[in-house]
Amino acid sequence: MSSKELKNKLGMPEPSLRRLPWYLSHVKLLYAEGQVQVSSTNIAKGVGLDPALVAKDLSYVSLNGRTRVGYQIQEVIEVLEQVLGFTSSHKAFLVGVGSLGASLLADKGLRHFGLDIVAGFDINPDIVGTNIGEVPVYHVDEIKERMEQEEVDIAILTVPIKQAQRTSDMLAKVGIRAIWNFTPVRIQVPEEIVVQNTSMYAHLALMFTRLQLNN
Amino acid sequence: MSSKELKNKLGMPEPSLRRLPWYLSHVKLLYAEGQVQVSSTNIAKGVGLDPALVAKDLSYVSLNGRTRVGYQIQEVIEVLEQVLGFTSSHKAFLVGVGSLGASLLADKGLRHFGLDIVAGFDINPDIVGTNIGEVPVYHVDEIKERMEQEEVDIAILTVPIKQAQRTSDMLAKVGIRAIWNFTPVRIQVPEEIVVQNTSMYAHLALMFTRLQLNN
Repeated sequence: MSSKELKNKLGMPEPSLRRLPWYLSHVKLLYAEGQVQVSSTNIAKGVGLDPALVAKDLSYVSLNGRTRVGYQIQEVIEVLEQVLGFTSSHKAFLVGVGSLGASLLADKGLRHFGLDIVAGFDINPDIVGTNIGEVPVYHVDEIKERMEQEEVDIAILTVPIKQAQRTSDMLAKVGIRAIWNFTPVRIQVPEEIVVQNTSMYAHLALMFTRLQLNN
Repeated sequence: MSSKELKNKLGMPEPSLRRLPWYLSHVKLLYAEGQVQVSSTNIAKGVGLDPALVAKDLSYVSLNGRTRVGYQIQEVIEVLEQVLGFTSSHKAFLVGVGSLGASLLADKGLRHFGLDIVAGFDINPDIVGTNIGEVPVYHVDEIKERMEQEEVDIAILTVPIKQAQRTSDMLAKVGIRAIWNFTPVRIQVPEEIVVQNTSMYAHLALMFTRLQLNN
C-alpha cells in the first residue's frame, strides 16, 4: 500500500498516526496526576509541538476540543487506545529465539499494548521444547500447524540476517498477514502483507553518527 | 540540529544514512556466500530499491563502483561498518531496568553493533545490587559518580512514562551526550544532546492499524 493509499484508508496522514502515541502517553500522565480536562495548548507543550497541529491530529480521530474547556482526558485516552489497537489483543508468533528474540519473549510490556506472543519458533534443539517467559518454543517446521490452531495474524521476525528473506517467504506461504521485522534486512513480501520495520541497529547507527558529528 | 543542518554535516541526506544498514546486511550475506564483487544493480535488487539510488547513496561514503566490475564487497563492508559506527565501541548506561530494560541488558546482539552497556540503573531495591546478563545494576543516585569513572556518553532510557522527562533532565544535568529513548514520551532536552527515539509501541500501533485496514 502506498503512503497515499494508506492516508485515504486511515482518514489521516501517516505522520499524524505516528504522533498519536505521544499524545496518549502525555494525557495518561496528566490523568494520573488527577487532571480531567486538557487543552490542545497543554498537550502541545507537553510533547513539544504546535497546538494547531495537535488539534488537527486529534480531529482526525473525531476528538474535538471545546473552547475554554478543551478535551475530556478520559475520552482522549479511550479513543486513542482504541484507534491505536492497544485495547484489543493481537496474537503473534515470534520466529528466531536468539538474543533479541528471547528478550522480546520475556518482555511483558508488549502485552499491555495489545500484543500477545503465544509461541516462539526456532531450529536450535537446545531451545525447542523449552519455555521462555512462559511462552513455549516450537520447531520452525510446526508453524503452519500451530497457525491453524491459534488463528495468528502477526509474526515477529528476529532471525539471523541469512534467514530473514527465506523465513519471510515461508511466513507468506502459510498465510501470515503482518510481519514485525526486527532484522536489518529489507524483506520483500507480497504487497497484501503488512511489514513493519523496527530497525534497532539502524537507529543505533544514526545515533552514533549524530554523536560523532556533535563533537 | 535541524534535518538540513544534519545533512550538511553528514555530507548526505538522512534517508541515505538510514538505508546504509540495509546495504550492509545485504552485502554481508553475499560475502558469506563467497562473492567478492557486487554491482549496484545486484544490491538494489536485494533490497528492493532503484540501482541509481543505491549508487548515489554509496557515493556519499566515497564508494564508487567500477564499470563491469562493480564494488569490492570487502571494501563496502569495511566502509559501511565504519561510517555506521559499528566498529568502535560506545559505552552506555541503561536507566530503568523494568521488563524492556532488562531485556536490552540481556541482549548480547547490541555489542556486535558497537554498543557496550556497562551498567544499569534503577530504584527498585530488589534489582539494585544484582547483575543482569553480567551487567551490574546500581541505584539511579549513583549515575553521576559512575559517569565520571566510566566516561559514558550514551544513556538508554527505558523508565516508566512518568519518569521519562524527569530522568532526561537529570541525564542532561550530569552531562550525558546522547539518549536512546525507548519510552513513548517525546522527551525534551537541550539541543546539544542527541535524542534517538525507538518507539516500539508506536510501531506496534502502526502495524495494528495497517492490519485492520487490510481486512
